Order: sequence, then structure tokens, then C-alpha cells
Amino acid sequence: MAIITLTTDFGEKDYFAGATKGAIYSELPDVKIVDISHSVSPFSIPEAAYIIQNAYNCFPKGSIHIIGIDSELNVENKHIALKLDDHYFICANNGIMSMICSEIAPEKIVEINIHDRIQTSFPVLDVFVKVACHIARGGTLDVIGKTINNIKPIKNIVPFVNDDKTQIIGSVIYIDNYGNVVTNIKRDFFETIQKGRDFEISARNYKFKKIRHKYSDVVNFEIPEEKRHDEGKGLVVFNSGGFLEIAVYKSNTTTVGSASSLMGLGIMDAVSVNFFRIKNRE
Amino acid sequence: MAIITLTTDFGEKDYFAGATKGAIYSELPDVKIVDISHSVSPFSIPEAAYIIQNAYNCFPKGSIHIIGIDSELNVENKHIALKLDDHYFICANNGIMSMICSEIAPEKIVEINIHDRIQTSFPVLDVFVKVACHIARGGTLDVIGKTINNIKPIKNIVPFVNDDKTQIIGSVIYIDNYGNVVTNIKRDFFETIQKGRDFEISARNYKFKKIRHKYSDVVNFEIPEEKRHDEGKGLVVFNSGGFLEIAVYKSNTTTVGSASSLMGLGIMDAVSVNFFRIKNRE
Amino acid sequence: MAIITLTTDFGEKDYFAGATKGAIYSELPDVKIVDISHSVSPFSIPEAAYIIQNAYNCFPKGSIHIIGIDSELNVENKHIALKLDDHYFICANNGIMSMICSEIAPEKIVEINIHDRIQTSFPVLDVFVKVACHIARGGTLDVIGKTINNIKPIKNIVPFVNDDKTQIIGSVIYIDNYGNVVTNIKRDFFETIQKGRDFEISARNYKFKKIRHKYSDVVNFEIPEEKRHDEGKGLVVFNSGGFLEIAVYKSNTTTVGSASSLMGLGIMDAVSVNFFRIKNRE
Repeated sequence: MAIITLTTDFGEKDYFAGATKGAIYSELPDVKIVDISHSVSPFSIPEAAYIIQNAYNCFPKGSIHIIGIDSELNVENKHIALKLDDHYFICANNGIMSMICSEIAPEKIVEINIHDRIQTSFPVLDVFVKVACHIARGGTLDVIGKTINNIKPIKNIVPFVNDDKTQIIGSVIYIDNYGNVVTNIKRDFFETIQKGRDFEISARNYKFKKIRHKYSDVVNFEIPEEKRHDEGKGLVVFNSGGFLEIAVYKSNTTTVGSASSLMGLGIMDAVSVNFFRIKNRE
Repeated sequence: MAIITLTTDFGEKDYFAGATKGAIYSELPDVKIVDISHSVSPFSIPEAAYIIQNAYNCFPKGSIHIIGIDSELNVENKHIALKLDDHYFICANNGIMSMICSEIAPEKIVEINIHDRIQTSFPVLDVFVKVACHIARGGTLDVIGKTINNIKPIKNIVPFVNDDKTQIIGSVIYIDNYGNVVTNIKRDFFETIQKGRDFEISARNYKFKKIRHKYSDVVNFEIPEEKRHDEGKGLVVFNSGGFLEIAVYKSNTTTVGSASSLMGLGIMDAVSVNFFRIKNRE
Repeated sequence: MAIITLTTDFGEKDYFAGATKGAIYSELPDVKIVDISHSVSPFSIPEAAYIIQNAYNCFPKGSIHIIGIDSELNVENKHIALKLDDHYFICANNGIMSMICSEIAPEKIVEINIHDRIQTSFPVLDVFVKVACHIARGGTLDVIGKTINNIKPIKNIVPFVNDDKTQIIGSVIYIDNYGNVVTNIKRDFFETIQKGRDFEISARNYKFKKIRHKYSDVVNFEIPEEKRHDEGKGLVVFNSGGFLEIAVYKSNTTTVGSASSLMGLGIMDAVSVNFFRIKNRE
């Protein structure tokens, strides 16, 4: 039996996530439900897009992902179901899927059209659960919607590069639990532009000339532990999702501070990379 | 095998919820455990009552609901188990069940009396889990308690209506993850009093003359998207639980604000509805 | 099939916990995964140690516990797997296990050495999940690591006792969801030193001469409920984990306050117990 995952902005307190799980088990007692996140910031499509992109492909092929963010049906916000990379996604057509779709082309997209049978103010419960259970039982997308070819894009997925390729201007797309600042600059993209050149990364008035392999690379382990002062050091890494991330060693947003709090970096702030010309040293 | 759900004020961090789940699996390896919420405000009986009322009936008949809020046993706070609407509920007799019981009569209520065998400072773990597993194995309520006929009520479940039925005075019972303000005025109750009359809803100095079908009904989709300023607009709906709710379109408590923060509305604040006489227009 | 539990500082929002669960189900579709906590304070080894110690033994023997706190591999932070009390634990050798190991000797400890095959910036996903699934399939610890005899200790696990045993100086190791202040003074330890003597517990300028059996022991139930003012009263109990805890009756950190907020007590603050000489009353 398939896995159904949930990614929503329902929060940890309300009855919404519990009710959704109850409705799924009522239809399919043997399905496995996995919470990915219910703490997406309310209505934050970029956050949801980032979270689902980085979580989905850890799940087995055939998994069904319900994404409940800004999912109220209206003339501009239709419900869709996609098959992509042998996974299924059910969400509103509001941009959530455009980050994944910019990297992997969907095999099929349908606009869900079972709403004539369902009147609801809780579409995740009444529509998305029905669609997910239909797919989990082996049903096809054609039965629950009509094929469409495009989905709504979101802005700022891809960073800007200047004409002579000496600069990338990216932006912050996510702040994680450690206050780490995640940009939209992915490793492959960075390396394609870099072509081995030295560089300087700028975020507000902070500058970095190195990308670390891991967070603890800022520590000098030759100094005795009790004499070190590494906690709070700023650094840049490619995170486990492959995104350029500005971090602080052993950060904690409520005590020592974090990259976000200490450097004053928030969602949509610019992070730029300047590449240096290779000097002719002869 | 039955489903056991958990609704508690344990929070997301402590070991309490994990320990409870471990204890259940130790007794019943094949049971399904579903978290409804562990983020009920500490000791908040009205919040727990609201959450369980709106979640329970999405689960299959026969589900067993553990509610761990203010559950320390003492002379005034006995433990009870109920069968109602083909669901089982295990909690303290502190008012949590009175909201559901005001709408659906319980088939059976017992006051749990297995405590002579159990000394505990963690009753959810040591008493409620035992009772839940007993029920999940097909055991009867009679074995674990003595029948009682009444449960402790909570105040302010039902709104006040004046004698000539021109006014409902309700109160705020819940603030949800979006900062939406949920009142104790239910749709059926409202419509019974309304009898088709026009009305004005008042909350502090905010007035509403319409109840929307859905949140996005405040948007004028004929205006191009980039020229709209709908986020932050106040509105009233009946929410998915059927409760009158004062909301803000695309609210976010930490950024644009919410009905609760923008209108200064908190738990127990009054929300009134004034009905207009139908004028003789001839 | 075994249970795999997760205790991490990933938070409730990020994709890390979801991705970890997906990776486990990809290897072992029939395993049961239980979240103990993902809200450990970032990098807080004492908090994680306290949570896992109090949760693990509610789970069935043979359960496998992944603890993802400060788990980046480096020369000082190796990965280990332990068998202890018929449970398995997988974590970094950073002190997390020293609280449990101070009470129960591990049967076996190995330093994980599968890293030559795995390069990762997400060790919980890429290393701990692999080790957990290996154990769940019945694999031995010897296959994934080399035996070691000691683990890294953490400080302040055991309180200080003066030479003539008239004073215990403990410290705060945990603040729970209710703002209760948990010390490192355990019931058995306390009673061994106490030997029936009277005592006074001091925390900042607050003094307590009684340890209550339960929280509601501060309530005088002979006074009518509407005339009582017990909420907010300070008290001391041994909590369900057996730790001396300073609490406030029906505390709530965001409304009436809590032991932590009202008494100004935080992690690492001192809590002392002074024992009185038994007076010769003849």
C-alpha cells in the first residue's frame, strides 16, 4: 500500500492535520501517512515548494504527496494533480510545483474536476484526500481531472546572471530551524557559471570567499577545545539540498543567534556572488 | 486493529508524547496511533474540547481518543471513559467532553476505577493508555469503571440570545494557526435565530454585514492581480467546523497580521449579532 | 518488525524529519517510525539526553533510537551505535548517551565506520538511517563499526554533595513545555542522602520544605472552587522521570507564567537542598 505524505501550513495545534489523517484512514485503513511538515508559514508558497522539493525524493517511488497551502478553490486557484519522477503531487495550482517542475518535467498534469460533486471549505480534507485515496487505490489521473500542459510559475526560482557572467544575484528563499539562510543558488548552477574562478559572496555587508564542505570546517581542531571560540562563526556551505546557504556554526535562534538574526537576512533579500577574472600572472 | 488518537498539551519538545506512543506499541504492536495535537495551550479545556470535537468524526467508527489535558487525578478531577457516536474517549472529567456531549448524547460514561492498582504522576501513560488498549482489544467499559450519568460542564459553550431574539451574544472560543477568531456561534444555531433577517456582526469596533461562503469571496477577480490589495481584508465565514469565524484574508500572525492581532480579539471576548426587523416597505 | 524512533533538533518546519522518514520507509516499508521529538533546542545535548532517557524504555525491547543532535562527523565527533537495556541507540559520540550510561552499562558500543562508503552533509539521513535499517533487519553492530569501551561524558549529570552530607547542590537540566524546572537531582539519590531528615530546597530566593506527591496537592479542596487561588502556586515534586522538579500549579508560559519565568530559573542554574540535623528533643 502506498505512502501518503502531508505538507501543510495547518500548524501543530489545530484539528486540521488530525482530521485529514482520520479521513485518509477512514478510506484506506492500511495506507501509511507521513507528516513532512505542518509548520510551513501560512500561505508561503516558496517555503512549501522548497520543503517538498527536498523531501519528496527520499520517499519510495509511487508515493503520493498532498500539499495543503493556499488551497481554497477559486477562479484563479484551481486544484491540480501531477505525476513527476514517479511520484504523485496534489495541490493548488499556485506555484508550489514550479520549483520541482523547473528541474524535472512532469509526466502528466491534470486540473482536478470532481468539484461538482464536492462543496467544501476544507479542500485538503474533502478534495485532496479523495484524490490521494483514488491514486493510492491504483486510479488514474484522467478519471479525476482534465489534462493541462502548464502550471503557474513562481518568481525568483532562478537567480540572475549578468551578461559577462561575472556576477550571480540570487535571493534568500528559506530560513531553516537553525536560522540558516538558504538561497536560490544551486551547486550545479554555481559551478557552471564559476568555471573554477575565485569568488566573493556578499550578503548585506558580510563577505565570504570560501564555500565549506561542512559546518565544522570553520573549527581549528588543533586548538584545545576549551580555548576555542568557534560557535557563532559565519560560513557558507552547499546544504544537503544542494542550495548555497549562509550559516553560523552551532547557531540557535533563541540563544547565540543565527545567520538570519545576526546578519539581518530575511526572505527575498539579495545574496550576490562576484567572480574574479583569472589574472595573467606571468 | 483500532486507531488510537492523541490530543494533549504535552507540546512538541518533551518526552511525554513519545513515551505515550511507546507504551501503546508495547501493549499493542499492531495498533495505529495518530497525533491530533500536542500543542493545545497548557490546561486549556475549551481548546481541547474544540479540537477533539472537530477532529474525531473524521476517524473511522470504533476509534479511541485519548485526551491528555489537566488529567491529574484528584477528588475533583476523576478519570472517565465514554462511548459516543461509536467513538471512545478517555480523559479527565473536567469539561472537555461537554462540548461534544451537548450535541450528541453519550451511549455510556464510566468513571475509571482501576487506580487502586496504579499509582502514577503521569496518568496519560499509566492509566489512559491502559484503558485505551483494553478497549482496542475489545474490552468493555464496565470492566474499567462504574457507570455515571453526567459529566462536568464547561461554561460558554452556548451563546446567549435575548428574549425577543434580536441579538446573539457569543464569545471567542479558539484562535487558530492563521490567527482566525472562532466563536461559539454555530451555523445551525445562527440560522434558527436569524430566520432570514439581515444582520450586523460586531466584534470590538469592527462590523460585518455579510457571511462569506469562502475566504476568497472578498477578492474582486475582475481587477488584475497586480492591482489588488485584498490581503489583510477582514471577513466572516462559517468555518469547516460550522463555527462563525472572523478572519483576515491570507493572514499570517507573524507578518501581515491576523484577525486576532489586527482586531485585538482574544479568547472569551464577546462577538454579537444584531438582527434587523424586516421593514414593512409598502 | 522493529520500531525506529527519532529524536532530533530538526524543528517542526524543515524537510529534514520528513526526508529521514521517507528514507527509512524506502529501505524498510514495514517498519514503524515514531517521532519522539524534533523540537530539541538546536545543538542541546543535555536536552536530548534527558528526553531520550525518559522516553526510550516505554518502547518495546529491540527498538532502535536515532538521535540526530549535533551529528556532523569530524575528528572530535564520531558516530556511534550502542546496545543498552536491549535497546539500540545511534547518535554522535558527543555526550548524549552519557546520562543513560551513567545508570545502565551498555552491552556494546561501536564507533561506526561505514563512512568510507558514504559522503554526506546530512548524516542522520545517510548514515544513521542506514545503520538503523541494518539493525532492524537483524544485522549486528560489529558489521558497521569497531568496538569501543567508553563514550564522551557530559558535565553536570550528577549533583554535588558536600563532605558531611548536609547539602546537595544540583542544577537545572531541562525546562519543560509547562515551564517546569527540572533538576539533575533524582529521587533515589535524594533519598540516599536525606536518610529521613527534614530539608529546605532553595532556588534563587525561593524556598520549599515539602516535596509534593502530585501537583494538585497544593490545592485545599475544602475551600469552594470559586474561592480558591491556587493557580500560580509554586511547588516541588519528583516528576514522572524521577527528577526533582520545581513547578507552578497550572502554569502556562504565555499566560499566568511558569516556574521558569516567575522564579527566573534557567538551564544550569543552581538548586540546592539543605538537610537539617535531627534535633535531640528530649
